[in-house]
Amino acid sequence: MTIYRWLVPPIVVTALVGFYIGPDKRWPSTDSLTTSSATIAEKYRADADRLIDAALTDNTAYQRIGYIADVFGPRLSGTPSLEASIDWVMDQMRRDGFDVVKGEPVMVPHWVRGDESAELVAPRRQKLNMLGLGSSIGTPPGGVTAPLIVVSSFDELTRRSAEARGKIVLFDVPFTTYRETQPYRTQGAVAAARVGAIAILVRSVASASMQSPHTGNMRYDSTVVRIPAAAVSVEDALMLHRLIDRGEKPVVTLRMGAQMLPDVQSRNIVAQINGSEKPEEIVVLGGHIDSWDVGRGAMDDAGGAVAAWEAVRLIKKLGLKPRRTIRVVLWTNEENGARGAAAYRDAHSNELSRHVLAIESDNGTFAPVGFCVTGSEFVLAAGQGVGSLLSRINAGTVERERDGPETDIAPLVEKGVPGMGLTVDRTKYFWYHHSAADTFDKLDAREVASCVAAMAVMAYVMADR
Amino acid sequence: MTIYRWLVPPIVVTALVGFYIGPDKRWPSTDSLTTSSATIAEKYRADADRLIDAALTDNTAYQRIGYIADVFGPRLSGTPSLEASIDWVMDQMRRDGFDVVKGEPVMVPHWVRGDESAELVAPRRQKLNMLGLGSSIGTPPGGVTAPLIVVSSFDELTRRSAEARGKIVLFDVPFTTYRETQPYRTQGAVAAARVGAIAILVRSVASASMQSPHTGNMRYDSTVVRIPAAAVSVEDALMLHRLIDRGEKPVVTLRMGAQMLPDVQSRNIVAQINGSEKPEEIVVLGGHIDSWDVGRGAMDDAGGAVAAWEAVRLIKKLGLKPRRTIRVVLWTNEENGARGAAAYRDAHSNELSRHVLAIESDNGTFAPVGFCVTGSEFVLAAGQGVGSLLSRINAGTVERERDGPETDIAPLVEKGVPGMGLTVDRTKYFWYHHSAADTFDKLDAREVASCVAAMAVMAYVMADR
Repeated sequence: MTIYRWLVPPIVVTALVGFYIGPDKRWPSTDSLTTSSATIAEKYRADADRLIDAALTDNTAYQRIGYIADVFGPRLSGTPSLEASIDWVMDQMRRDGFDVVKGEPVMVPHWVRGDESAELVAPRRQKLNMLGLGSSIGTPPGGVTAPLIVVSSFDELTRRSAEARGKIVLFDVPFTTYRETQPYRTQGAVAAARVGAIAILVRSVASASMQSPHTGNMRYDSTVVRIPAAAVSVEDALMLHRLIDRGEKPVVTLRMGAQMLPDVQSRNIVAQINGSEKPEEIVVLGGHIDSWDVGRGAMDDAGGAVAAWEAVRLIKKLGLKPRRTIRVVLWTNEENGARGAAAYRDAHSNELSRHVLAIESDNGTFAPVGFCVTGSEFVLAAGQGVGSLLSRINAGTVERERDGPETDIAPLVEKGVPGMGLTVDRTKYFWYHHSAADTFDKLDAREVASCVAAMAVMAYVMADR
Repeated sequence: MTIYRWLVPPIVVTALVGFYIGPDKRWPSTDSLTTSSATIAEKYRADADRLIDAALTDNTAYQRIGYIADVFGPRLSGTPSLEASIDWVMDQMRRDGFDVVKGEPVMVPHWVRGDESAELVAPRRQKLNMLGLGSSIGTPPGGVTAPLIVVSSFDELTRRSAEARGKIVLFDVPFTTYRETQPYRTQGAVAAARVGAIAILVRSVASASMQSPHTGNMRYDSTVVRIPAAAVSVEDALMLHRLIDRGEKPVVTLRMGAQMLPDVQSRNIVAQINGSEKPEEIVVLGGHIDSWDVGRGAMDDAGGAVAAWEAVRLIKKLGLKPRRTIRVVLWTNEENGARGAAAYRDAHSNELSRHVLAIESDNGTFAPVGFCVTGSEFVLAAGQGVGSLLSRINAGTVERERDGPETDIAPLVEKGVPGMGLTVDRTKYFWYHHSAADTFDKLDAREVASCVAAMAVMAYVMADR
């Protein structure tokens, strides 16, 4: 998961999606949505139970996530490993017998981390646990060395702006929610450059830590100089802050070999089973195949991508023939550009009006809770009807989305396509998110299977009703 | 905490300590130990409550642990930071008004880690999260590169010994208890060298992980060639194991610049308040001031060392004048040699018969549970009597030690001194142990204060009764 959905303030989201909250040409209007949806959903209980049973007794999804995470490893945009994983997934999808399997071209940024380090050089020498932020520039080869100023908010930086000139700014901001905390990662470099700082460090956006730095994308602004930006572990941020509180004057050397190379071509994976009655109407579901260059992108988002893929494979395997087309899209470059999301929208602009629903799973493949909906009352009610079929796996909570649509479906939602996101137990998500610890061992086979079940039931019923 | 106490099989411990289980010249014999001890302890309830209240309302211990961990950082034997921390502690102790404060010389090993890395080079390239093991030799400058063999036990290595020749052996052994799991770290290199392996990796001895490798000491054997030894993160060990299970043939390059330099001089800190009636009889309490070179040694063992020191400072601050001398010993070199423990025994050989008790706190400074006792029934019963004074802070469980004495008091216990170890809630101990994540933020001020309280009450009553 990257920044998009978290950066859009709720008021903008409301304005953005407001035009299709209300009657939706894609779906009928009705006066008794809930009853109607519940009744329709009830028709599907037998099929839903078959799908759930199939998901819970088939560990293909779990194994495939492990294969992607272990064999291809990190899959940052621009890397051969990302393209190799895309080739492998497409090959497997062809073996699965999807009606269509293709790789659609997407030009993606090619940011490379290079060698990097951060070191406390006074009052004592101590290597810091750091990761450069995605899209950051590098430092000169010898690094930048400067005294540190620590602030706990943008407001504090503003108040102390005179002190920040020529310094490295550390944003030591405790994790509350991703929405609240992550702007320091994305916007900290711009804010610090404005007051004359020469680099920034941000406390990792993480809800637990074992000295693990967490990366993620950042951005610059055309009005102000670009300065290097890196995350440090929660522990190191706290330690630097305490040193200053004790009257010490920490000096830090930051070295980053990061650079942005010319864009390269990647691919969105688009695979589908054609609808039996209305093949031109499409339910999209997917996740993203790319990941950060640390960890293995197991929960972010091999898990989500495979859950969508496997949901459709199971629908086909059980011989279910939904009336509408179900299309799996595994987007590329979600993490540092969301170019795959834009490219899918652009490549399919002539059929977006026939996209009846877009479902994304990019919140980790932990125990599923349900779905969040961006769309009309009808879609919400219909989703809640399907939710009733998922209560046996405790994944039946279908609510209106409050944080804005998921990143990869956001361009579709902007075009009026109803959106859904798979919601899961997020307890551990920000323990591992964008860190080296996003590895296969963090996933539980039963939880993954339950995510597959939830995606399969939602996609099938919504494509068939 | 290092290996000593965990390496001694229970049967050996029983044999070792057997000679003083029974009448102990240091303490009277009695037919009604429990009643007597409980009655005596009850006499001390008012003093115990004052000590507990003082500990719980004084955050000096917490602040001092933070100062040691943050300002001096890692304190491996042979480093200037260890000696600087010893100087600072002794200076503070003089200001605290101890009757005696001295640094007693100890020759310690001087192992240096150097630059190090491990990389999976086939079937794909992936930097592994590793830490060389303490006392390991280094590799040639270009490293060693070899196919990997993964085993889950010494037995499996024996069965597959023909396959191990010329390979790097990975011991992928899940954490159960420290006693069971840690022999792979300490003895793995010898076992693997015996079957012709050229290096070993061990899955970190840890009960939770976020890609954090855990170091610790290892040892060689004069009968077999020395090979380099490193720990990898739990995640990387699992991943390498899965790759092999999938039929891949992982190849790893291990580079270690480790070397053992000539011994250097360090110091045990010995500080005391003299007894008011029997100053020649001594209760020792302490922890170790050295740490591994990763993390900051906050819970292992700045916390334990400061808890002992602060216990005695509070006794003095409250004007309590125990009949016997209470001596704080902050041992050096516990982690990679236990030379401080041996040196204290040797330097004080002429007064060991007047050491009536030795208490060590080296199990982390988490919520205290009580004490474990190695010694006569009288000492156990006396300790249990004191335990009844600690029930208000839930630290009253005093039991016989089952794993052998703590490392730094073990040489005293071998000489017949009754021993006690402070026991604490160990839930998180092996999350951080010997890793970069052993940092001050992991400690809780109230839990630290409770450890101080437990140490103070036990030391005071046992020194005065």
